[in-house]
Amino acid sequence: MTTLAIDYQDIIAASQRIKGHAVITPLLESPMLNQELGGRILFKAENIQRTGSFKFRGAFNKLSILAQANQLSGVVAYSSGNHAQGVAAAAAYFGVPATIIMPADAPQIKITNTKTLGARVVLYDRNTEDREAIGLKLAHEHNLTLVPPYDDADIIAGQGTVGLEAANQLEELGLVPDQAIGPIGGGGLMSGTATALKYHFPNITVWGAEPEGHDDAARSISVGQRLANKNAPSSICDAIVTPMVGKLTFPIIQRYLDGAKAVDDQHVLITMAMCMQLLKLVVEPGGCVGLAAILNKSLAVKNKTTLVILSGGNADPAMLGLAMQR
Amino acid sequence: MTTLAIDYQDIIAASQRIKGHAVITPLLESPMLNQELGGRILFKAENIQRTGSFKFRGAFNKLSILAQANQLSGVVAYSSGNHAQGVAAAAAYFGVPATIIMPADAPQIKITNTKTLGARVVLYDRNTEDREAIGLKLAHEHNLTLVPPYDDADIIAGQGTVGLEAANQLEELGLVPDQAIGPIGGGGLMSGTATALKYHFPNITVWGAEPEGHDDAARSISVGQRLANKNAPSSICDAIVTPMVGKLTFPIIQRYLDGAKAVDDQHVLITMAMCMQLLKLVVEPGGCVGLAAILNKSLAVKNKTTLVILSGGNADPAMLGLAMQR
Repeated sequence: MTTLAIDYQDIIAASQRIKGHAVITPLLESPMLNQELGGRILFKAENIQRTGSFKFRGAFNKLSILAQANQLSGVVAYSSGNHAQGVAAAAAYFGVPATIIMPADAPQIKITNTKTLGARVVLYDRNTEDREAIGLKLAHEHNLTLVPPYDDADIIAGQGTVGLEAANQLEELGLVPDQAIGPIGGGGLMSGTATALKYHFPNITVWGAEPEGHDDAARSISVGQRLANKNAPSSICDAIVTPMVGKLTFPIIQRYLDGAKAVDDQHVLITMAMCMQLLKLVVEPGGCVGLAAILNKSLAVKNKTTLVILSGGNADPAMLGLAMQR
Repeated sequence: MTTLAIDYQDIIAASQRIKGHAVITPLLESPMLNQELGGRILFKAENIQRTGSFKFRGAFNKLSILAQANQLSGVVAYSSGNHAQGVAAAAAYFGVPATIIMPADAPQIKITNTKTLGARVVLYDRNTEDREAIGLKLAHEHNLTLVPPYDDADIIAGQGTVGLEAANQLEELGLVPDQAIGPIGGGGLMSGTATALKYHFPNITVWGAEPEGHDDAARSISVGQRLANKNAPSSICDAIVTPMVGKLTFPIIQRYLDGAKAVDDQHVLITMAMCMQLLKLVVEPGGCVGLAAILNKSLAVKNKTTLVILSGGNADPAMLGLAMQR
């Protein structure tokens, strides 16, 4: 068997590092929704995590490890916006400068928040420039450590604390979930989370959710090798429109995920409205694709206990307005 | 000194009863907002409590005590909608029927949710009918226990767990708050919460927030006796437009609250939009008046640590739409 980038113990260690820094986000449920769907859905509300997404967990874990090893001077990261804020907040905590490379068309809220958190923001054109190349160049020129968005063991372990925390909360409620689903882009969240969930609940099935036309995870799992999205259509799910899952995340995904489900923008908007109404939560498009995959009937939940990860809430007001019109 | 309806130990006992049933709601903060206001604001997010408001805590505590004493057969309650849902959910848990008397003009979401939770809903006209009289009549005719919305020791102790939980969370963060503010209608939430907060932080000041023209709490605290609102204007804060604070809550409020601040509807709408954007939380008008009182400069927060209680999130889509236009 392939050696995986992380194991359960790495997630336990990460959870000790982020303790008192990351929010212990609650598991929420809606009796209305449970009744309508005929199953029990528990939502892990990472949209109310510090910086508005789970990304703070991985970033804080990574920077914490670097600081401990006296290897933390300054950091650089590329990100569509959520990892950006996570890295900026963690860098501010450790008192080191952060430079973040973001697409010029990222939601304004993500750009503004990243700057407010004290980071220097460098915008690039997603269609003509290569963010990894810009990141490596800046890292080299200014002696900065590159903090990758997902393909890094410390990042994966940090994101895995979402699954660990949810597992502990489910156990406190005396629940054994049948299945879990959450957003998959590069795969950091779901590879880490699945590692923790399978440890606690060996019989659970774990699913990714991704935008239609960006179904690289589903296809990669299906054929057993990493496949990229080609000529992918535009999607409102900016947080998870990565070209393909990571080199380190994929072996974990292969081992622990049962597949991935695709959702279209219209279902995503309906889901955002439902989260506001039933859960009192503002979620961003890419954050709620797990629930969208249930609502579009890609994942059956009847008579089952399902964990749904809501991964982020950084949506611009215009996007919320669109959702509320559904 | 007047003997108060509850003390700190009653809140501890209530917290043990609701454990595993109520959501442990997180303390959230926004670096953006902190920076703008020049202080540190921590939000207790009771809008994501079960049934969408803190009311579940008091209702569950009350019904739990009745069940323990074998005095629980059926319950009746009158409520503008949040207590209704709290009682309905608690009654469903204990397997007893609930009848809820609600104003015909309550937000539709509150009426629908109360019915979905299994309660029988009786609508009345707020302008011509007396909800207490209807409640007592139903209680007598059908041998039901009346569960008052705030003027009851077990209800107050249950709502006080908001303050207890927040105090524990603040202590875990190593913080000593200078002040706290939250919505005040009948006073159940703030009397219970102030009892817990003053126990943990003897130097804290505690403030209520209420709609302009419904400033009975401010005036009552000021003159030292319960005063009613007369010819009060309409307000979007349906959750807290009670005629006056309670008989049992007032002595506690007198002892532990430093005053109450008034806010207008426009500031409330702006605050709702801000909670969506910065905290990723949907709050209802009456739920966010504490923050509204900070934004309208009634409560100074500069260089202070302030606890703000967001008490509920049951807002209709139309109200959210109004807020988003701010």
